[in-house]
Amino acid sequence: MDDTTRTDYERLAERLTARGADVAAIERRLAEHRVETPSWGYANAGTRFGSYPPEGLPSTPFEKLDDAAEVHRLTGSAPLVAVHIPWDQLDDYAPLKQHAAALGLEIGTVNPNLFGDKRYKLGSLVNPDAAVRRLATDHMLECIEIASVLGSTGVSLWLPDGTNYAGQDAFAVRRRRLHDCLAEVYAALPAGIELLVEYKLYEPAFYATDLADWGSSLLTCQKLGPQAKVLVDLGHHAQGVNIEQIVATLADEDRLGGFHFNNRKYGDDDLIVGSVNPFELFLIYAELAALPRLPRLTIDQAHVIEHKIEGMVLSVVNLQEAFAKALLVDRAALAERQAAGDVLGAHELLLDAFATDVRPLTAKVREEKGAAADPVAAFRDGDWWERVGSRRDAGATTGGLGA
Amino acid sequence: MDDTTRTDYERLAERLTARGADVAAIERRLAEHRVETPSWGYANAGTRFGSYPPEGLPSTPFEKLDDAAEVHRLTGSAPLVAVHIPWDQLDDYAPLKQHAAALGLEIGTVNPNLFGDKRYKLGSLVNPDAAVRRLATDHMLECIEIASVLGSTGVSLWLPDGTNYAGQDAFAVRRRRLHDCLAEVYAALPAGIELLVEYKLYEPAFYATDLADWGSSLLTCQKLGPQAKVLVDLGHHAQGVNIEQIVATLADEDRLGGFHFNNRKYGDDDLIVGSVNPFELFLIYAELAALPRLPRLTIDQAHVIEHKIEGMVLSVVNLQEAFAKALLVDRAALAERQAAGDVLGAHELLLDAFATDVRPLTAKVREEKGAAADPVAAFRDGDWWERVGSRRDAGATTGGLGA
Amino acid sequence: MDDTTRTDYERLAERLTARGADVAAIERRLAEHRVETPSWGYANAGTRFGSYPPEGLPSTPFEKLDDAAEVHRLTGSAPLVAVHIPWDQLDDYAPLKQHAAALGLEIGTVNPNLFGDKRYKLGSLVNPDAAVRRLATDHMLECIEIASVLGSTGVSLWLPDGTNYAGQDAFAVRRRRLHDCLAEVYAALPAGIELLVEYKLYEPAFYATDLADWGSSLLTCQKLGPQAKVLVDLGHHAQGVNIEQIVATLADEDRLGGFHFNNRKYGDDDLIVGSVNPFELFLIYAELAALPRLPRLTIDQAHVIEHKIEGMVLSVVNLQEAFAKALLVDRAALAERQAAGDVLGAHELLLDAFATDVRPLTAKVREEKGAAADPVAAFRDGDWWERVGSRRDAGATTGGLGA
Amino acid sequence: MDDTTRTDYERLAERLTARGADVAAIERRLAEHRVETPSWGYANAGTRFGSYPPEGLPSTPFEKLDDAAEVHRLTGSAPLVAVHIPWDQLDDYAPLKQHAAALGLEIGTVNPNLFGDKRYKLGSLVNPDAAVRRLATDHMLECIEIASVLGSTGVSLWLPDGTNYAGQDAFAVRRRRLHDCLAEVYAALPAGIELLVEYKLYEPAFYATDLADWGSSLLTCQKLGPQAKVLVDLGHHAQGVNIEQIVATLADEDRLGGFHFNNRKYGDDDLIVGSVNPFELFLIYAELAALPRLPRLTIDQAHVIEHKIEGMVLSVVNLQEAFAKALLVDRAALAERQAAGDVLGAHELLLDAFATDVRPLTAKVREEKGAAADPVAAFRDGDWWERVGSRRDAGATTGGLGA
Repeated sequence: MDDTTRTDYERLAERLTARGADVAAIERRLAEHRVETPSWGYANAGTRFGSYPPEGLPSTPFEKLDDAAEVHRLTGSAPLVAVHIPWDQLDDYAPLKQHAAALGLEIGTVNPNLFGDKRYKLGSLVNPDAAVRRLATDHMLECIEIASVLGSTGVSLWLPDGTNYAGQDAFAVRRRRLHDCLAEVYAALPAGIELLVEYKLYEPAFYATDLADWGSSLLTCQKLGPQAKVLVDLGHHAQGVNIEQIVATLADEDRLGGFHFNNRKYGDDDLIVGSVNPFELFLIYAELAALPRLPRLTIDQAHVIEHKIEGMVLSVVNLQEAFAKALLVDRAALAERQAAGDVLGAHELLLDAFATDVRPLTAKVREEKGAAADPVAAFRDGDWWERVGSRRDAGATTGGLGA
Repeated sequence: MDDTTRTDYERLAERLTARGADVAAIERRLAEHRVETPSWGYANAGTRFGSYPPEGLPSTPFEKLDDAAEVHRLTGSAPLVAVHIPWDQLDDYAPLKQHAAALGLEIGTVNPNLFGDKRYKLGSLVNPDAAVRRLATDHMLECIEIASVLGSTGVSLWLPDGTNYAGQDAFAVRRRRLHDCLAEVYAALPAGIELLVEYKLYEPAFYATDLADWGSSLLTCQKLGPQAKVLVDLGHHAQGVNIEQIVATLADEDRLGGFHFNNRKYGDDDLIVGSVNPFELFLIYAELAALPRLPRLTIDQAHVIEHKIEGMVLSVVNLQEAFAKALLVDRAALAERQAAGDVLGAHELLLDAFATDVRPLTAKVREEKGAAADPVAAFRDGDWWERVGSRRDAGATTGGLGA
Repeated sequence: MDDTTRTDYERLAERLTARGADVAAIERRLAEHRVETPSWGYANAGTRFGSYPPEGLPSTPFEKLDDAAEVHRLTGSAPLVAVHIPWDQLDDYAPLKQHAAALGLEIGTVNPNLFGDKRYKLGSLVNPDAAVRRLATDHMLECIEIASVLGSTGVSLWLPDGTNYAGQDAFAVRRRRLHDCLAEVYAALPAGIELLVEYKLYEPAFYATDLADWGSSLLTCQKLGPQAKVLVDLGHHAQGVNIEQIVATLADEDRLGGFHFNNRKYGDDDLIVGSVNPFELFLIYAELAALPRLPRLTIDQAHVIEHKIEGMVLSVVNLQEAFAKALLVDRAALAERQAAGDVLGAHELLLDAFATDVRPLTAKVREEKGAAADPVAAFRDGDWWERVGSRRDAGATTGGLGA
Repeated sequence: MDDTTRTDYERLAERLTARGADVAAIERRLAEHRVETPSWGYANAGTRFGSYPPEGLPSTPFEKLDDAAEVHRLTGSAPLVAVHIPWDQLDDYAPLKQHAAALGLEIGTVNPNLFGDKRYKLGSLVNPDAAVRRLATDHMLECIEIASVLGSTGVSLWLPDGTNYAGQDAFAVRRRRLHDCLAEVYAALPAGIELLVEYKLYEPAFYATDLADWGSSLLTCQKLGPQAKVLVDLGHHAQGVNIEQIVATLADEDRLGGFHFNNRKYGDDDLIVGSVNPFELFLIYAELAALPRLPRLTIDQAHVIEHKIEGMVLSVVNLQEAFAKALLVDRAALAERQAAGDVLGAHELLLDAFATDVRPLTAKVREEKGAAADPVAAFRDGDWWERVGSRRDAGATTGGLGA
């Protein structure tokens, strides 16, 4: 931390303390903030109009962990890595787990893949063909086993199934198929592993998606049991939907399983989290900061034109700053003004926290953890390319979304 | 029915019969189609930019029933009238019930009003002030009593509560308030009266609405009990949401309480049902036609520039035609093609039903019920103005939305 | 045409004639309806989540024309084929032109490709790097030459350029780059070839697209000259935008260059035109039918799960039916009611045309042109697979969107 | 400015200076920032579901100016007041101009009203009835005269005209009517008064609005002449539209007439500017800060539940902070990174400016102008109620939107 940042930090701490805030407690909570980055976020990715793989991309799960370790080294709060099967498939997962441990990382969620295989043309767990449903169910079961081996506490379920044309299939029949398959999957869940049921308005299905919104995911979880929870991907809602309210509702129902963080302006744009509406991200964290413990905080982004590691570092930094701002909200005063019906008075308490420049605070917490005060600059000034990127086989990138 | 329509009907019946359809059964189901029109749809209405009350508007609940009777007379399938409290408030409801019976009508749902009263500035059942919540709860209880007196089988709940600014109030606290109030309301429900829990994305609240989507309404119903069901208003969804899928899900969960029919292109536009996307309306009816019995089918529209009775007649006609087309779908073939994964084959069965000109069929069914073969033309050619409209006090319109 | 359809046709013609319609004139206009299908619509296509190439896909421009010829054979109104460079690139285009002629086809628009090439990572005509802009401009110039050789009258410009992050580039600077490149392109246009400037709200750019709406395309055309016209793709608008109004405005400004027909419920879904909101398609045709001549009518769809030829046939049929319904609108009565401010009276004239089952009429017109009365059924019952599909090299599909 | 803010200011100024910023120049530009508040924003307003007029509302144009003066006194940068005819109609405008001058205010734009009058049921300048078009045109002409008398430099045109049903009227015919009326209006414009042509996607028209987007407004301006410019209301776009890009385009075409500032999450919500997405507001100001001079900056909001003066003060403060942040952007570095294609490097320069807590800077500039360091607190702690509000006639509020 340079002198300027140090001075700024002291000034901020002083001001917060004067206001009655417990700066040490805020820093402790910030230090406990653990983000999960996705192995596939380090690999090639594109849109249906093409991808632009830069040099230095990782080509094995081990190399992806190396990049994740770089992000963790710089930010100090990205110790978890989500893996994807089959993109990270191995005959033996023990070496991967060891590699992670050696890098100071843990494996986060295991993410099954229910798209892409030619047999999934008409869906996976909801396919009209029982044999395909069997295939998809078996893949889910396999992922639970992999999660057990890797010490993961969560298996995600993003169900890409849906229909493209009205009448193509019957909604109620499809619900039956889905619930039957998932009942079998859920029964195989060991204690300590949660099933994270994601939802998405559309894409790749364009008429109706079987799990299209939080309501449909929650209904599914209710049918399965308490180890099934809803996963909120910020890019998967209709325009105008209030995401922080959904987060609060799911938390209130004890069904908030976690996040797929990214940002979007239009569809499922998979941009860097916080890059379109950072105030919305802050409001989500304002809900999270009020909970007894944070849920899974996974990033799910597809960096198409920006540098993947730099983009991931910036994403973690954006999350840290959103959390820091959320921790500054004077909750006692807020509750008081809310109860008194002081509309703008309550609103201004959020504005005040959001307007605060918390970068000195997050810099200080990062530095205390041995990470970089300014992680993006540190990456740009660092030697990742010489040390890692340039040593990789330029041609050997493994696939990712749209790649 | 003129000769042209008669010939067209015979041609259509012949063709359907040749295809294996049971025309008599279709006509029976069409004849049983019962739509509920809203008393407030006959009164003045506008936007926040003004209203344009024509002459001849009704100024009492009795006069509104007179207009509803005209719609029923012409269409043969609008025997129910929804009432609104306090817009239709009376000291004694017995005369209203008698007036309805004399006109061949029944009272449908009773619709409480939780907006407009100056005390509801910060909400009704979710207001931070317990005294206001008491007021709102008492109004709900009063409406249940009125429903009992009027022989109504449903009390609706459209909750306009929400917040306009982030931080204005706490989501979880508001949920508690809502559930507490509704628990008391639900406890007062006699057997045979359902509570219909509506949802709406936004307006009049512009940051967050407490019951914003079907998921939040369904969760509320689950907490209350089996007499609580979800009411779907076609204009209350985010852009792009698949409404027929929501209908199918709610029906599958046995929680589809009914509809507020209208249409919208942008926000909650309250246009004539079927005027923006008649194919979507058909798809909704295609779901309904597959159910053992139809749910409540209430129109909720605010005719701002068109003639109110003519607009209501056209709305009922649009619903009749949508239902008729839905009844033409060859369900056995559809299920077969769906199971076989025949994407376009299944879709085309819906297209075929939708492309069919069912007007001769609905004309015939209407005529057999003593209604008009062409209700809109019959209204235009009729003497409602001389008989009814011109006799009303031009100045004495009672308020409605935005009026 | 089977007897049933024949009878239905006669009944319809009789009814229309009785109403004062000139059925022969309507049929003449229907017979002149010429749709352009896209060569890439016959090739493989997918989403960024994968593609599902069926067997029998064409692998050369010649084979794509064979499939287009099948669509024209069945529908009688798809004589034009759009080509795409480089997907249809050849050393010598004369054989392709001859092949088209031999099949009774003409080459429609020539469609340049400004995405996918690794050098286009940050854009093509708007790239910050002048060398890349040169590359893209040269490609446009090459396509104009190809259009001349092929006898095409239009070169399209879909500009995928845009930015993913706020601040990534300067809007005004980008406009300058675009206009400079296009000035050079426009200067190279021979008489008789139009530049069709498409627009799209988003994708593949996710923060800002340089030509995002009709206004930006029209401004570009104004700067270039009268041979530059706007191309309307039905899937490229924000939710809620009134497309038929845009069509009317562009036509009124004499800048309506043509269409890319498809349908969408969410983003740029590229579904079969007319499958989501056929009433909207009818309203667009109601605008077109009032023009002195029809603009280019090109289909641009990516069939991911349905059979490509069957989907294309259905698309052409949907367009024919929309046009037929539009031709039934009683325009004299409509203008009269509009001038009189008869809101629902005017609206009902459109509803009447839309509700009419025009399939017998389109069947009759198709049959008179030697095409199929029921083209979808004819394709399903036909021998295309034996004759064509099964003879193709199963592995040799050429790429398309997301494939 | 209290000591804390003073210290924070010095710290910020030091840091900015060290970075090479010219703090004095930034402060000069901030000091020149002039916002126009709307007279109708101080009066009663509501939604179509009701309004909640607090005590102390102004009931004359003079009293509205008194409230505007309070906002200017506290913020130091709201010296202009937009007036609305007929809500601010007077027999003689000289006293109003004098009252403004006495309060240190100027009259900003004059805003005609083309809705509400019962004759405008089917539109104003686009009404099918020539007599109504005459009425509306005369009202526009009258407003130009009032603007001349009041020394205003702008007359706005928000055209609420549109249709509710497909077919209700003919798009091209309506364009002709509009252009004819506006040609007459434009011809009456004296030098020094601009016509500001607003657009809006929908409401009160729900099928098609005649000036629905910036493209249609710009086309209208082009036909009229250089004194016609486009007015951008932040709440009038379809979801997902990139407003800052539109701003840049209009400025580049020299047609950016000004703003109606507010914010929205759903439809035209008229919330406090900056309350939903402050980053978007910053991006808009980042475009404005690069222009040779700022356009008109008018607030147009309808405060339904919050205190109107407090909400207006907060709005001006939000604008000041957005402008201050925009002035911090290192434009030379930005242009360099943009030209180099450094995607995230350029983006981060905006993030850096946005993350900076500029409140000490705006406080200092306000204080130097004799305004309040913390205007919202100053209002809450002040004696407006005793001095002004409590002395007003509680019952005599004059109408506003939805009121």
